[in-house]
Amino acid sequence: MPELFRLTTLSEAMQRLEEALPEEILRGRLAVETVNPSDAAGRVVAEDVVSPVDLPPFSRSIMDGFAVRAQDTFGATDGLPGQLTVIGEVKMGRPATVSVGAGQAAKIPTGGMLPDGANAVVMIEHTQPFMVSEVEPCGEQTIEVVRSVAPGENVIRVGEDLSKSEVMLRAGRRLRPQEIGALAGVGILSVQVYRRPRLGLLSTGNEIIPPDSEPEPGQIRDINSAALTAAAQNIGAEVIFFGIVRDNREELRARLKETFESCDMVILSGGTSVGIEDMVAECIAELGPPGILAHGLALKPGKPVIIAVALNKPVFGLPGHPASSLLTFDLVVSPLLRKMAQCEEKPRAKVRALLARNLPSAPGREDFYRVRFESREDKLWAVPLLGKSALISTLLRADGLLHIPAEREGVYEGEEVEVELFREG
Amino acid sequence: MPELFRLTTLSEAMQRLEEALPEEILRGRLAVETVNPSDAAGRVVAEDVVSPVDLPPFSRSIMDGFAVRAQDTFGATDGLPGQLTVIGEVKMGRPATVSVGAGQAAKIPTGGMLPDGANAVVMIEHTQPFMVSEVEPCGEQTIEVVRSVAPGENVIRVGEDLSKSEVMLRAGRRLRPQEIGALAGVGILSVQVYRRPRLGLLSTGNEIIPPDSEPEPGQIRDINSAALTAAAQNIGAEVIFFGIVRDNREELRARLKETFESCDMVILSGGTSVGIEDMVAECIAELGPPGILAHGLALKPGKPVIIAVALNKPVFGLPGHPASSLLTFDLVVSPLLRKMAQCEEKPRAKVRALLARNLPSAPGREDFYRVRFESREDKLWAVPLLGKSALISTLLRADGLLHIPAEREGVYEGEEVEVELFREG
Repeated sequence: MPELFRLTTLSEAMQRLEEALPEEILRGRLAVETVNPSDAAGRVVAEDVVSPVDLPPFSRSIMDGFAVRAQDTFGATDGLPGQLTVIGEVKMGRPATVSVGAGQAAKIPTGGMLPDGANAVVMIEHTQPFMVSEVEPCGEQTIEVVRSVAPGENVIRVGEDLSKSEVMLRAGRRLRPQEIGALAGVGILSVQVYRRPRLGLLSTGNEIIPPDSEPEPGQIRDINSAALTAAAQNIGAEVIFFGIVRDNREELRARLKETFESCDMVILSGGTSVGIEDMVAECIAELGPPGILAHGLALKPGKPVIIAVALNKPVFGLPGHPASSLLTFDLVVSPLLRKMAQCEEKPRAKVRALLARNLPSAPGREDFYRVRFESREDKLWAVPLLGKSALISTLLRADGLLHIPAEREGVYEGEEVEVELFREG
Repeated sequence: MPELFRLTTLSEAMQRLEEALPEEILRGRLAVETVNPSDAAGRVVAEDVVSPVDLPPFSRSIMDGFAVRAQDTFGATDGLPGQLTVIGEVKMGRPATVSVGAGQAAKIPTGGMLPDGANAVVMIEHTQPFMVSEVEPCGEQTIEVVRSVAPGENVIRVGEDLSKSEVMLRAGRRLRPQEIGALAGVGILSVQVYRRPRLGLLSTGNEIIPPDSEPEPGQIRDINSAALTAAAQNIGAEVIFFGIVRDNREELRARLKETFESCDMVILSGGTSVGIEDMVAECIAELGPPGILAHGLALKPGKPVIIAVALNKPVFGLPGHPASSLLTFDLVVSPLLRKMAQCEEKPRAKVRALLARNLPSAPGREDFYRVRFESREDKLWAVPLLGKSALISTLLRADGLLHIPAEREGVYEGEEVEVELFREG
């Protein structure tokens, strides 16, 4: 049977994955945890948040000026100012100790507490000292008001910002800086948010050693765990590394089971050698129903990818070659992980460029070529990096990816193509 | 003098700020620190990183198959296969103990170490057991090769991915997942990166108390510190909160100096009451030359903003009203802070909608109105939230901002406008 017939297309595999997982998991409703809002920027609240207090807790002035009874200012103009007796001053951060009666005013700063009796504030710019003559003010206790104010003007009423028992944040709201500020403002120091998805990571291979070890002949340092951890953390997952597993069925089965039981999603990288790949697939299949949804994608790089769901948890087998591993993470794992982490998909930036050489693509297979940009004669060219997918260096040199869809058999030199830039950081 | 003549436009203020700061600071070259690459996703390396080893450290197979001398396979086809004697097998993660001579082959897995003598790998799919008759293989030690391989085919040579002493990352490179993986692969566990900008935050006001305190009459919980911290951390700053300062010149001067000396940038929020604003401006001016670059912006909200540079450090006075404070942070501080944090500016998403009511704007002043969306009769409307800028709740309810440029005197109901969405998280 030609190989492409037994390979699953990327979109078909993604569809099977979404169909095999409950809506709650796809929407990141994994579980809730209690956190301090200050440590929870970008997280999503899991229940309605009710304000425990009125904000502000007292009526406040939002201007420097005089607290007055609005009716005492009605009709005041430059030509016919109203006169008010200043009976005292409100101090910032202190209770207002005066009470404003008819014909009276109290000096008040921005943010000061509105005194009893007053219902509005006249801006200081709309007042002037009352002068007996051109040069002699009539004591400091009398002012002239040259503009009328409406009741409530230049005042924030008790609870006008947020009122006690009001739902201030609905469940599902993401904590942006303004939500974090508002929670501080009403004194809420803990909120229920959805837990980040826990991604368990396993590297397989007898040749793989930790990055801090010295390789013996035949051994190589683990690249994938570091790269996949960074990629998954970038989109909001909590990553737990469960170490490097030998190519041994008992060890793999035991370690995979342990990882699976303590995480929401599992990624195995490596094990793409013939016998090992089958062993990995079998151990994944044993985890529970429905099991493997796709083994082999019509995708280059990424052919040996395994996609499974067991007991409502997604499990992925990614290639061992570092560049393939990271690219298939991006194409296959990250769309789902983003949803589970409630991390918005930000569209990648795209850049149009001229292709610097012919690129073949098997019909029925999606190809992703790493490319870098080069300027020649005022034009931007996309130069494919044709290195083997085992080389991480091709990803270091690449600026982005060129996608050749399944229905095309290649792209020609000089053709205008669209390159998706790699995300930074 | 009409007020607008003494106000600085936003673009003029930003230009003065950039002119007053050295290029190194504008580019985020604050200082370097040594970090583990695994903890440094998105950071920028401050010096060229040289690979200390060859990667891979030995020549490896990238296929399951047989390690051979390429010349022994030349001319091999399905019709005229070449015969090779299998002299052993390479084990994953172990040194290759065999040596491949003329007419010989060694079984090798993907990732296995290429044995001495061999210079290529024939894929297992291009070999078959040598059969004496239709059913009887001639021992397991002889295979037929049906496709020729070139020297180096299906092999990654020692150092082909990264070679010892090669500059693998240039100074200025941002650590994406692939860079983090590559550093793990060559065993680099610490790199020099640019330090994040340290932002010192001070709240001023006699009425302000910490969010975990119970307000007495006249007091109000600090909203701005929590909101500004989240906003600044979002764009890569390290934020240090220096507490709430009373409206007292000696205390303000001392605390500001302490903050200034230990940080790369200072933000004071609050102190927009008349006497206090002048006191804040004076204390900022005392920090050092060149001093205040703009005091008062032709911007609503945000008129009382103070912008200064002292001894190569930017200092901002932001309004105390929470919504104004956060919006002016976004408009005035964040473009500079992003540069200092080497955090790319991602363009905000914009949405076109019909304006739900007339909005005035003073000529010569830029206005930013908070709006929320509403669908009516299949059309998307932008409804301005006209609450006072002291209300944080208007920011909770808003979906985005509508910018009315200085040269316009307002926008009419029913006009199509472009709304910039707030960033999530």
